Amino acid sequence: MWEPGIYVLRLSHRKERDKRVTTHVMLTARAFGAKGVFYSGDEDPKMEEKIRDVVARWGGPFEVRYEPDWLGLMKRWKAEGGFVCHLTMYGLHIDDCLDEVPRDRPVLVVVGSEKVPRVVYELADLNMAIGHQPHSEVAALAVFLDRFFGGEELRREFEGARLKIVPCRRGKKVIKLEG
Amino acid sequence: MWEPGIYVLRLSHRKERDKRVTTHVMLTARAFGAKGVFYSGDEDPKMEEKIRDVVARWGGPFEVRYEPDWLGLMKRWKAEGGFVCHLTMYGLHIDDCLDEVPRDRPVLVVVGSEKVPRVVYELADLNMAIGHQPHSEVAALAVFLDRFFGGEELRREFEGARLKIVPCRRGKKVIKLEG
Repeated sequence: MWEPGIYVLRLSHRKERDKRVTTHVMLTARAFGAKGVFYSGDEDPKMEEKIRDVVARWGGPFEVRYEPDWLGLMKRWKAEGGFVCHLTMYGLHIDDCLDEVPRDRPVLVVVGSEKVPRVVYELADLNMAIGHQPHSEVAALAVFLDRFFGGEELRREFEGARLKIVPCRRGKKVIKLEG
Repeated sequence: MWEPGIYVLRLSHRKERDKRVTTHVMLTARAFGAKGVFYSGDEDPKMEEKIRDVVARWGGPFEVRYEPDWLGLMKRWKAEGGFVCHLTMYGLHIDDCLDEVPRDRPVLVVVGSEKVPRVVYELADLNMAIGHQPHSEVAALAVFLDRFFGGEELRREFEGARLKIVPCRRGKKVIKLEG
């Protein structure tokens, strides 16, 4: 059983076509307060390594897991008491349904790539739209997490970080932390 | 001279490597209330066409323009009274500087790809961080626009749209509008 919090499921990753966008989905999930990410489609160890490298340098906790059986994951998630929220431009406006997302249960936020199978719409506890215009699963996930956490996620301290940024009006300042 | 509002400058687009991420930047700019987008790097007519096709179907106004001389654009923007806001993980936290972004002048929001030249940090009126963690220029732009417009951007009606979504708890409902 998963602990309460947000996890992300990225559907049907295609190694060549999606490698940068899926990486952006995963880094956004981590930076904006999700606990981990699953992905289906092509297994992509290089991409996983890139994410784990960010976690090693910038801190965690954050998990990445390949899950070819995304349908089984969604079904198990619900059977074990979790909540499934699918982000789609066809869903209910975030303003009208964000409070339906529980804070005391594990939440699986599902983001697709091009074409999402109908069963996802049917199995989801909630189909939520971050606006009803075509844009980006990265943008949708970022705004969902920013609003769900009320901006607190951008002030979080990451555990085990070796690098930390000192905010700067101009230029770059990074400090190295002792392990 | 540009009218007040938000415009986006996407730096150093590389046709092969960035085509999907730059497309996401542009669609996010449009869907979240920017008036137009400039991009530098490789000229990419196919990508421009994809964006214009979205504007034709889902409405506007929204402009895409290739601008190889990004440095000249930034300088002209400032000389003509515009404001330049560069989104970077090294900048000031959005919570601490969002109110520095003017609402009565044209604002150019600059997003880079991998490595942004130092002159961008120097020329920008504001270097703003959407969190101080590595993530995504798409996520950064989305959260900036969502917070700048206070969520109003997701309720905007687009002019000349031929398609419109009817929010739906399950499934998809799209209506075709008469031209």
